[in-house]
Amino acid sequence: MAKLAFVLPLLLVLSLVCLSSSSDSDPQRELEECRRECQQRPQGQQHHCQEECERRYREQRRGRGERDPIEKQSGKGQDNPERESEQEGETEQERKNPYHFRDERYRERIRTEHGYVKVLDKFTEQSDLLRGIENYRVSLLEADPHAFVMPVHFDAEGILYVNRGRGTITLLQQENKKTYNLEQGDIIRVPAGTTFYLTNRDNNQKLQIVELLQAVSTPGRYEAFYGPSGKNPESFFRTFSDSIVKAAFNSQGDTLRRLFEKQTKGAIFKAREEQIREISRHASSRGSGTPFKGESSGPVNLLRHGPAYSNQYGKLYEVDENDYPHLRELDISVGFANITSGAMTAPYYNSKATKVAVVTEGNGYFEMVCPHLASGGRRQKGQGTEERYQKIRGNLSPGHVVVVPAGHPTVIVASRGRNLEVACFNINARNNERYHLAGKNNIYKNLEEQELELSFNAPSKEVKKVLNAQDDQVFTRGPEGGEEGGRGSE
Amino acid sequence: MAKLAFVLPLLLVLSLVCLSSSSDSDPQRELEECRRECQQRPQGQQHHCQEECERRYREQRRGRGERDPIEKQSGKGQDNPERESEQEGETEQERKNPYHFRDERYRERIRTEHGYVKVLDKFTEQSDLLRGIENYRVSLLEADPHAFVMPVHFDAEGILYVNRGRGTITLLQQENKKTYNLEQGDIIRVPAGTTFYLTNRDNNQKLQIVELLQAVSTPGRYEAFYGPSGKNPESFFRTFSDSIVKAAFNSQGDTLRRLFEKQTKGAIFKAREEQIREISRHASSRGSGTPFKGESSGPVNLLRHGPAYSNQYGKLYEVDENDYPHLRELDISVGFANITSGAMTAPYYNSKATKVAVVTEGNGYFEMVCPHLASGGRRQKGQGTEERYQKIRGNLSPGHVVVVPAGHPTVIVASRGRNLEVACFNINARNNERYHLAGKNNIYKNLEEQELELSFNAPSKEVKKVLNAQDDQVFTRGPEGGEEGGRGSE
Amino acid sequence: MAKLAFVLPLLLVLSLVCLSSSSDSDPQRELEECRRECQQRPQGQQHHCQEECERRYREQRRGRGERDPIEKQSGKGQDNPERESEQEGETEQERKNPYHFRDERYRERIRTEHGYVKVLDKFTEQSDLLRGIENYRVSLLEADPHAFVMPVHFDAEGILYVNRGRGTITLLQQENKKTYNLEQGDIIRVPAGTTFYLTNRDNNQKLQIVELLQAVSTPGRYEAFYGPSGKNPESFFRTFSDSIVKAAFNSQGDTLRRLFEKQTKGAIFKAREEQIREISRHASSRGSGTPFKGESSGPVNLLRHGPAYSNQYGKLYEVDENDYPHLRELDISVGFANITSGAMTAPYYNSKATKVAVVTEGNGYFEMVCPHLASGGRRQKGQGTEERYQKIRGNLSPGHVVVVPAGHPTVIVASRGRNLEVACFNINARNNERYHLAGKNNIYKNLEEQELELSFNAPSKEVKKVLNAQDDQVFTRGPEGGEEGGRGSE
Repeated sequence: MAKLAFVLPLLLVLSLVCLSSSSDSDPQRELEECRRECQQRPQGQQHHCQEECERRYREQRRGRGERDPIEKQSGKGQDNPERESEQEGETEQERKNPYHFRDERYRERIRTEHGYVKVLDKFTEQSDLLRGIENYRVSLLEADPHAFVMPVHFDAEGILYVNRGRGTITLLQQENKKTYNLEQGDIIRVPAGTTFYLTNRDNNQKLQIVELLQAVSTPGRYEAFYGPSGKNPESFFRTFSDSIVKAAFNSQGDTLRRLFEKQTKGAIFKAREEQIREISRHASSRGSGTPFKGESSGPVNLLRHGPAYSNQYGKLYEVDENDYPHLRELDISVGFANITSGAMTAPYYNSKATKVAVVTEGNGYFEMVCPHLASGGRRQKGQGTEERYQKIRGNLSPGHVVVVPAGHPTVIVASRGRNLEVACFNINARNNERYHLAGKNNIYKNLEEQELELSFNAPSKEVKKVLNAQDDQVFTRGPEGGEEGGRGSE
Repeated sequence: MAKLAFVLPLLLVLSLVCLSSSSDSDPQRELEECRRECQQRPQGQQHHCQEECERRYREQRRGRGERDPIEKQSGKGQDNPERESEQEGETEQERKNPYHFRDERYRERIRTEHGYVKVLDKFTEQSDLLRGIENYRVSLLEADPHAFVMPVHFDAEGILYVNRGRGTITLLQQENKKTYNLEQGDIIRVPAGTTFYLTNRDNNQKLQIVELLQAVSTPGRYEAFYGPSGKNPESFFRTFSDSIVKAAFNSQGDTLRRLFEKQTKGAIFKAREEQIREISRHASSRGSGTPFKGESSGPVNLLRHGPAYSNQYGKLYEVDENDYPHLRELDISVGFANITSGAMTAPYYNSKATKVAVVTEGNGYFEMVCPHLASGGRRQKGQGTEERYQKIRGNLSPGHVVVVPAGHPTVIVASRGRNLEVACFNINARNNERYHLAGKNNIYKNLEEQELELSFNAPSKEVKKVLNAQDDQVFTRGPEGGEEGGRGSE
Repeated sequence: MAKLAFVLPLLLVLSLVCLSSSSDSDPQRELEECRRECQQRPQGQQHHCQEECERRYREQRRGRGERDPIEKQSGKGQDNPERESEQEGETEQERKNPYHFRDERYRERIRTEHGYVKVLDKFTEQSDLLRGIENYRVSLLEADPHAFVMPVHFDAEGILYVNRGRGTITLLQQENKKTYNLEQGDIIRVPAGTTFYLTNRDNNQKLQIVELLQAVSTPGRYEAFYGPSGKNPESFFRTFSDSIVKAAFNSQGDTLRRLFEKQTKGAIFKAREEQIREISRHASSRGSGTPFKGESSGPVNLLRHGPAYSNQYGKLYEVDENDYPHLRELDISVGFANITSGAMTAPYYNSKATKVAVVTEGNGYFEMVCPHLASGGRRQKGQGTEERYQKIRGNLSPGHVVVVPAGHPTVIVASRGRNLEVACFNINARNNERYHLAGKNNIYKNLEEQELELSFNAPSKEVKKVLNAQDDQVFTRGPEGGEEGGRGSE
């Protein structure tokens, strides 16, 4: 009965919200109202209540038009002409854009006074077009200076990228344990089922980690199993029957109960300075001469290796299975792009890999060419020319995630004023090739005269002049007028 | 028209049953009534009719509350408070438990006077949480002494485990055939598409086989193709047009028809003693000095290898890809646990593998910690503490199947009076690690003082005392009071 | 608004068609009417309009009875007895046949004056039973003499089989490009994301290519990305914002706009003879001594290798991962069968592979034994004997596709008058075995006397006489009376 005491009022709240705003509802306003309601609830119910609000918000937004564009195919006749021509800008764009994930797509799994863990929705909740990466999830962790993140294991493989700060990670194995110091740019694999814990050993800086997870049991679903801890986070020992735990530990029930009730600080809390020191004291020293330590299970540093490509418009760093053998098993590579303020990547695509890009710093936007949406939605435009490709565009801010599927030509532009930094996980990375469509290393430069004439239906001289005009490659000067290109052609 | 003559009355029977029990229906009673009706039908229709009854029964049970807990999320407000607090015990538990499969989850594919084959429902029929193992099926075969099981091939890879009895298996290949004697504990792979037949060469004992199948064409679906036989089981030659079969065999139609009508004994029937003798005479002799014969395609014996771990509370046997290379391709390992009466396994989890455990002897129960259900169902309990993990519990009897996903801490307890025996197929076995959460080899013993203090928020001395109290490992003394821990905390 | 100007009238057309034919609609007639309507539309809208007609047609056909047989299980009581007994012949058969794909299952992606590309529907649109090959698609290309097919890349791996004609293919890589001459029987892999273009270098003969595609991003979905071309096919450069393209090419907007508007001939158009000559001049010469060039990325010829099996009734050609290493990564083998007029394949099945067979020449029919449909539909027939297997049968013409799942005994019969030619892609080919069920290499010939007696319940002498009557194998004399066996036993 105790459970229902909570569930019923919450439903009531949600129903009222729903009724009072039926005809002209604004999901964003409802979300805020719902959250305010939650804050008046008892402490223990707030987290759950907030989650419900967010879920409801997402559902409403989807109901309003974020339907999967594939599903829309048959119902497109119901589109409202007025709404089509409305100047809804980004919101309207978002509705048609299954590849861009903004803040409201994260769900908090943990939030304490000293940090949080939030997890991006399953990709397939946004669109069936993302089924190919259904099994992957993105998660962000932030922990205050001297914070300790409780021991936990996941039913998922994890690749951690350290975006900011100086931490320590300990991996608990059946036979022994390994501790490594972490710093900005480090990548480390946490194998599925490995119990690990983190500490922020810095006195001032927050520790920020971006994680790609690959579920091992149920596609796209993973959970955290908090180990020996107590009441909050709930230890899984408290879930077993008392008689089982007593037998397992060969101890008295009250001893155990006492032990499993002591931890009540939440999953992320401040440790004392000497505790931090003691833990990092055991950390493996990183061989200063070898930027890569892939042989061991320790971290490898993406940034220290030096950029794979660099010019005045940007820097690209990469680590693949050759640098860090763990990535072979997972068929993933990890990259980091630092795009100079006002510059952009030259248009390019990956041949096989799907890129999951997480913005870690700065602002900007991306454009992507998407025939899947065009063929799904099957719009017709202008003078009767069939619109084969739809432009996908989205403004980027820290935390945003962009999925760039294989083959899709894409450009990322950094806003003026600040560099745009993006951490990238490339899924299905084996034998992937990056093809550049403009710039000095443009693939069309390999074409001979006759082929250029056939392909462009223009004199090869004219074509060559255009293909050779750009002296830079990979990163180039950005569009003039900054964001002006952003609105798209509609 | 002939077909419909059967279908319509059956539907009538089912409709009547349905109408007469609409308001307060009891699926179990309906199942029995339906089965009685079937027994009054002509012989040839009975099997089909029984299957319909069973399917209907399963649907009703699901309709009553065995809905996928994931799907329940949005509809949970409709839960009836009265029913929640009812003392429905196991039934109520089952409803929330997608990991436990009991007798009614099997469907008979063959039953003759001398044996049967039954197949467990697709895992995903019970819950979407089991999608990761959708492609696997569990099957049980039992054949009387001197029984012969007709030649058959499956569109599935098969791993057979001989639970009881002494059999002979013949694998028919394009070029030759291979015959092996089988005995208790033997494991043998039957590659997809290989025609094989079995005989029970024992004079007294039944032959019992547990099989894990992995579908090769359609995920989770496989069928039996009975080869050269006749009317029952239906030979697939009888399905081709007469003119095709005549051309294929270059024979007269009546000769062929005569041949393909002779076999009418069903798929499992008694052979004469000299026939059995003749078949097993060709069997490869098992090298007595080498318990493992993995190099050949012959069987390997799980039990003769000696236990991987053994103490007074239980024995654990295991065969992996190193022992039997066939398992490498399938990414499976096979185990067998014999838990001493009244004892239990120490709490543990697998890092990557999902365990499909089939009870072969004895009784007991299991408990498993499941955050997926908790987050799916999102219940709230007691003093406002969020219930992160849901306890899964089920009583175990021979034939029951338990699925233990990776990462899920689990305990299996043997009832007093008899050892509990469990055959286990571990799916996704490569690089799997078993982590023990209590007992002498407890992973938390690797933690240093500061880490213990942080993790338990208790003086390390106090924690160590608890962690060291248990001198046994893997298997330990069971809970006192036997089943008392079974009801869970609700 | 411009888009809607097209969409609305089309919907109107479709609605009228729908209304006027509501009660006794004939999808075929509607399709033709709809297509006529389309021809009165502006040029630019016709392709899209035709596609809508075809999609609507398919939906109607499915609505009329091509429901997935698996789904039919629960609703089978609604089957109409009259319709069951109707002599609907092929149409009725088709309805129950998820393995046979005829002309209307193709959707045109390109059609110009000089050629076309059409793509078979996703297999899973026809039946959930084909989920195991969901990721694969079949496509046909035909190009006139001297036609040029514009540079394009797919988000899919491609295996091309040259059915007719003499072409040239150029693969554009990041660093260089490779050109190969193609001739009948050639197989070449086009890796995902590789930009390539084709020319028909023959003066008279059409170039026909059959392609198997394996999507790399979204299961079973792939799209064509036309590269540097202009207005038709739409270049993906035209999709990016003007400011982006200007920055990428470091050129003036009007120069670029001029360049990207020049190409308006469509994706397949005639090249001048000297252009063709120039392109094929760069083609790698094929070493005349080595029929296979698998080491390079060039094509391998299926026919020149000589048949894997041949007799007066047919010839079978095959290329696997040993002949062409590219096939290893894709786990595919490619075959070609030329069945002599009036002859047939002996009944056989593949142990692991699912065969996707594309008829390239001639006519005939196939029969396949399918327990999955029987167990899905659960029909009952005749004297109460359960019908375990359903016969699948379909008439074959060029372009038809038949999917033969692993384990399913199958026969293909060539009509009299002309040889039947079939190109086959075997998916999941590693360790696949072909098992022959009749003919000289019949697997049952390996059985000993006792085993024959047990399996057939007949004196072994009588069985042996039947098994030995056929002196041929793989291909045999066909059924007498030609098509007479076609109707099935219903």
